[in-house]
Amino acid sequence: MKKLINSVDNVVADALAGIAAAHPALRVDLENRVITRAGGPRAGKVGLVSGGGSGHEPLHGGYVGYGMLDAAVPGEVFTSPAPDPILAATTAVNGGAGVLHIVKNYTGDILNFQMAAELAADEGIEVASVVVNDDVAVQDSLYTAGRRGVGATVFVEKIAGARAEEGADLAAVAAVAAEVNERSRSFGIALTSCTVPAAGKPTFTLAESEIELGIGIHGEPGRSRGPLRPASELAAVALDAIAADLPLDGDLLVMVNGMGGTPLLELYILYQAVAEYVAARGGRIARNLVGNYITSLDMQGFSVTACALTPELTRLWDAPVDTPALRWGR
Amino acid sequence: MKKLINSVDNVVADALAGIAAAHPALRVDLENRVITRAGGPRAGKVGLVSGGGSGHEPLHGGYVGYGMLDAAVPGEVFTSPAPDPILAATTAVNGGAGVLHIVKNYTGDILNFQMAAELAADEGIEVASVVVNDDVAVQDSLYTAGRRGVGATVFVEKIAGARAEEGADLAAVAAVAAEVNERSRSFGIALTSCTVPAAGKPTFTLAESEIELGIGIHGEPGRSRGPLRPASELAAVALDAIAADLPLDGDLLVMVNGMGGTPLLELYILYQAVAEYVAARGGRIARNLVGNYITSLDMQGFSVTACALTPELTRLWDAPVDTPALRWGR
Repeated sequence: MKKLINSVDNVVADALAGIAAAHPALRVDLENRVITRAGGPRAGKVGLVSGGGSGHEPLHGGYVGYGMLDAAVPGEVFTSPAPDPILAATTAVNGGAGVLHIVKNYTGDILNFQMAAELAADEGIEVASVVVNDDVAVQDSLYTAGRRGVGATVFVEKIAGARAEEGADLAAVAAVAAEVNERSRSFGIALTSCTVPAAGKPTFTLAESEIELGIGIHGEPGRSRGPLRPASELAAVALDAIAADLPLDGDLLVMVNGMGGTPLLELYILYQAVAEYVAARGGRIARNLVGNYITSLDMQGFSVTACALTPELTRLWDAPVDTPALRWGR
Repeated sequence: MKKLINSVDNVVADALAGIAAAHPALRVDLENRVITRAGGPRAGKVGLVSGGGSGHEPLHGGYVGYGMLDAAVPGEVFTSPAPDPILAATTAVNGGAGVLHIVKNYTGDILNFQMAAELAADEGIEVASVVVNDDVAVQDSLYTAGRRGVGATVFVEKIAGARAEEGADLAAVAAVAAEVNERSRSFGIALTSCTVPAAGKPTFTLAESEIELGIGIHGEPGRSRGPLRPASELAAVALDAIAADLPLDGDLLVMVNGMGGTPLLELYILYQAVAEYVAARGGRIARNLVGNYITSLDMQGFSVTACALTPELTRLWDAPVDTPALRWGR
């Protein structure tokens, strides 16, 4: 295993120290492992908290800032954070208007966010939760009952964050978060496994020209394995799966996401194939992201996420955002 | 070889089509292979052109936009663009105030940009050139006489771009570009080779726990090979090499750059080590970038670039920029 780390035990702690050093607009509570916006809670603003296992950077810490998250709670690599740091984050961002938990659909995340929400309620903090479950690849999987939560998380955090920033109440922010999730679908394909530092070896093995279709973001199995094909065919595999569940004939927000080890050059080749596929279906990619937004350590591969936009969702997507990983309009 | 491509012959063409589809603020001349800002040349503004082999994305196409480059000229993977597309780019961005060529120090780039500059001069366009040569790892190398041009290119493009945007003349823009280059140094370390699509196999081979110190961005050899070490020691190797040539005791702009296949989590671990090293030398990292900014396809590894800031360079760094890969303040 070749990793740029100091020791297997300190991967997340050292990375958090680096995030703290690199981004003066963030505050990192190294003890509780909570990343918040500097300057404390915003009075009267709904607080947004997300989190989950580390290894998906820039998710979630890179999305903390104006117009997006108020706090991120990173667990160990591919391991849910415990209820206590989630509670600490919830308390830290509570400005009196309640807190929204954005939770990816993994059993550990669901349980621990739920427990933290109950503890927060005991402290008089109103908490709402939205569960993101956009991955059409599999029903149930290694860590999930129902569909997994993947790329739509980025869309939910951005759009709900914009709604909170403009002063909406907790019910309205939770409603738009749920709406984005319902209108979004994802599918991912892996060319290689990732290697979890603590494991020291690849999570799974693929043959020289073999790929995994419908992969999750933790190296958990997908739908099937098959031969490597041209990018345009892989884009069609992903989009056929998405289109079976979500009409692609209107205005879309599309993300072509790298899994961490894939060059941007290749993601643009995929984006071109995705754009052609969507155009042939009568759709229009009104907004897009191409790059590494929700990764799986050093995995080579990609995912496609599509969200069926409405004028209101487009407006909220375009609203100013100022975080380490997404920044525009401000 | 596992690549998300349609065919080995169409890698750059397909990626350019994807860039065109993804970024409406850019215009991509698919025939000449030139990426420019939409809206034609800015009258009275110095035009900035850079380019070189593809495979280093987001360099250079991702830096075309307000406050940075006016045009990028991508060659084939790791291959200099010919004089003709460089001339086409130069002509396309000429707003009457002259054009600055930002050239990384590789023999092919130097020759072809020089020839394009002469052809542009024949057409009555005033062209100045700055050669970026910040890599302290080796004197001369496979593709270079003298030091190679690497990470400082990003700093030069940003800071010269800001100076051009505020209306400076060609001599002033060229002067600040040269100043940034003179005040910047880089060093890179590879954990793995990259694989050039046309070659179909890794450019070089490293043993299971072996790394290459002082690597270039094309897989060309560095200073030496050695065993993998903790991130803090690797940061010290890179910074010792830089510090031998550039004092690190003042305000610095520091980039911890991923080579394309390295997770952001690891880059933050490295950044923390870099920040500690600099602080111990009495320096201060006033500004930073952590991420994939000048890559080498799918190589795993990193580079560190440091620039000794002045108040004026800091002001220009902070000036608004709006490109696919760098965006703030606007």
